[in-house]
Amino acid sequence: MARSVNRQILLKSRPEGAPSLDNFELTEGPIPEPGDGQVLMRIVYLSLDPYMRGRMSAARSYATPATIGQPMVGGTVGEIVKSRNPKYSIGDIVLGYGGWQEYAISNGAGLRKLDQTTAPVSTALGVLGMPGMTAYIGLLEIGQPEPGETVVVAAASGAVGSVVGQIAKIKGCHAVGIAGGTEKCHFVAGELGFDACVDHRAPDFPRRLEAACPKGIDVYFESVGGAVQQTVWPLLNDFARIPVCGLIAQYNARTPTPGPDMFSVLRKRLLVRGFIVSDFAAKQADFLRDVGEWVRMGRIKYREDIVDGLEKAPASFLGLLQGKNFGKLLIRMTT
Amino acid sequence: MARSVNRQILLKSRPEGAPSLDNFELTEGPIPEPGDGQVLMRIVYLSLDPYMRGRMSAARSYATPATIGQPMVGGTVGEIVKSRNPKYSIGDIVLGYGGWQEYAISNGAGLRKLDQTTAPVSTALGVLGMPGMTAYIGLLEIGQPEPGETVVVAAASGAVGSVVGQIAKIKGCHAVGIAGGTEKCHFVAGELGFDACVDHRAPDFPRRLEAACPKGIDVYFESVGGAVQQTVWPLLNDFARIPVCGLIAQYNARTPTPGPDMFSVLRKRLLVRGFIVSDFAAKQADFLRDVGEWVRMGRIKYREDIVDGLEKAPASFLGLLQGKNFGKLLIRMTT
Repeated sequence: MARSVNRQILLKSRPEGAPSLDNFELTEGPIPEPGDGQVLMRIVYLSLDPYMRGRMSAARSYATPATIGQPMVGGTVGEIVKSRNPKYSIGDIVLGYGGWQEYAISNGAGLRKLDQTTAPVSTALGVLGMPGMTAYIGLLEIGQPEPGETVVVAAASGAVGSVVGQIAKIKGCHAVGIAGGTEKCHFVAGELGFDACVDHRAPDFPRRLEAACPKGIDVYFESVGGAVQQTVWPLLNDFARIPVCGLIAQYNARTPTPGPDMFSVLRKRLLVRGFIVSDFAAKQADFLRDVGEWVRMGRIKYREDIVDGLEKAPASFLGLLQGKNFGKLLIRMTT
Repeated sequence: MARSVNRQILLKSRPEGAPSLDNFELTEGPIPEPGDGQVLMRIVYLSLDPYMRGRMSAARSYATPATIGQPMVGGTVGEIVKSRNPKYSIGDIVLGYGGWQEYAISNGAGLRKLDQTTAPVSTALGVLGMPGMTAYIGLLEIGQPEPGETVVVAAASGAVGSVVGQIAKIKGCHAVGIAGGTEKCHFVAGELGFDACVDHRAPDFPRRLEAACPKGIDVYFESVGGAVQQTVWPLLNDFARIPVCGLIAQYNARTPTPGPDMFSVLRKRLLVRGFIVSDFAAKQADFLRDVGEWVRMGRIKYREDIVDGLEKAPASFLGLLQGKNFGKLLIRMTT
């Protein structure tokens, strides 16, 4: 049922420490009209991702912060419902950056038309989108795993981690996941085919992780930080590579969290490298070719955690920061 | 004057925290006789280097610890005085790993004959040896500086740092040294031609370093750690590279020193990589060709801090760990 209003979730205030529902505000307004050269998208899926925590803060980062009083930023899949841009027609499904709202205007820059026949369009926000490409780039460009090496990935049931481990298996590695809870671990080791998955909530987590990595760790794909990182670190082999794409356990800290002892970096000749997938835009065609094929062949599986209704976005996002989602978290609009 | 005895400095005990003279013992014994296939070297120069602090400890590292009751290990330049190895003749000057003693036996493995006509033989322990190659590899292979970028090097008057900054200048970079005290800073900026050198003992060191790096820092060549590292870290630019070849300020710590906040690694997409020069042995010919030529052309200058007498080695080494040397520290034997 089409509404006549555009609902939006605005960033109301910036969090100190952990964000709360009070940082967001649901508003209603008129559906905007596209100007010359613009299109109007009816958003179908909104992607919720950990990086958004960074956008809520005013601190300098690799991207401009979200603006107080404006809709929260985020990747979207939407349908063109009005077009004054000759490149887009009504009915086109496009990947874009529409934000936390039901309708969005775009001048067409940064939009990409999706082919609905090759894969469900929601995958453009997950396994075939930014999270999947983060996995692909971080593992292959930075981690550079060799067959037989051990790859450990934190948040292994999530949108990024699940792809990391499955690519590691395709490349002939021993893939070990870390996830929170028995259900996620069963999914990672059973459904996704990792060699093992260790529950970081288990009281003997360090012992279990060590047992799952009998030859040590050659690549640690870091998206979590905190206590998980501290458990992984002593198991790293000489010349291990640590791509760092996130530190979700540290995002809400009010003071900087000390990092691992640099002496281990020296002694083991570790390579630690932070990265943002957008710095590797030139690799997108390779990513879509390789991972697209692996998904079609069933060699990479994915799981989506779909929540209906824009109004659920704030609570769902807060849950994501606590690991309450199970698979790629998406908001499906009910407009 | 030739002695009839071989003096040796043994590792007597392993330090807890900072080493002291009590960890060493000077002994005298007979000069050994080479067996079949062996040579006897009369050591001329013994190199003292920060890495030796690691060898004093029993902890697992990238090399086997020195053995209690045996001579401390170390690189040497020596003269062959007896030979039962057809590859070496009496009078040959060889680079080797003879240790803290006046005479050493070798089976020839790992020895390299030096050409006394191309450079003073002591340089095989400094600018044309392990320290120079550490600078060359760390800066060019890991740091990969581009013309116009800012390269900051700690311990800039030392055997490694002095070469790092001079290569950075050759490569068209803005080279900034950090050193302890006015005299060293004048040497680095005046004699070696760095663009600036900042005294880390100055009360306003952070402000001075920032002023010397108006465009931020693109490569930080790390050999110090500790407070210097903490001052450098906030000035790093996005995509900065940090080759880590040493952490001399942390070697005596009894507990691990927390490293920099990993969030900065992520946010700025830093590359932090520990390395040991011996892992890059395949690059030695390139190093000798390039740095050899730069030294001959006067584009790379070097300073040696030569101390006479094996008995001075322990105190000189303790001074090295405190930055009391000024240039490449060598013990010249008085045998």
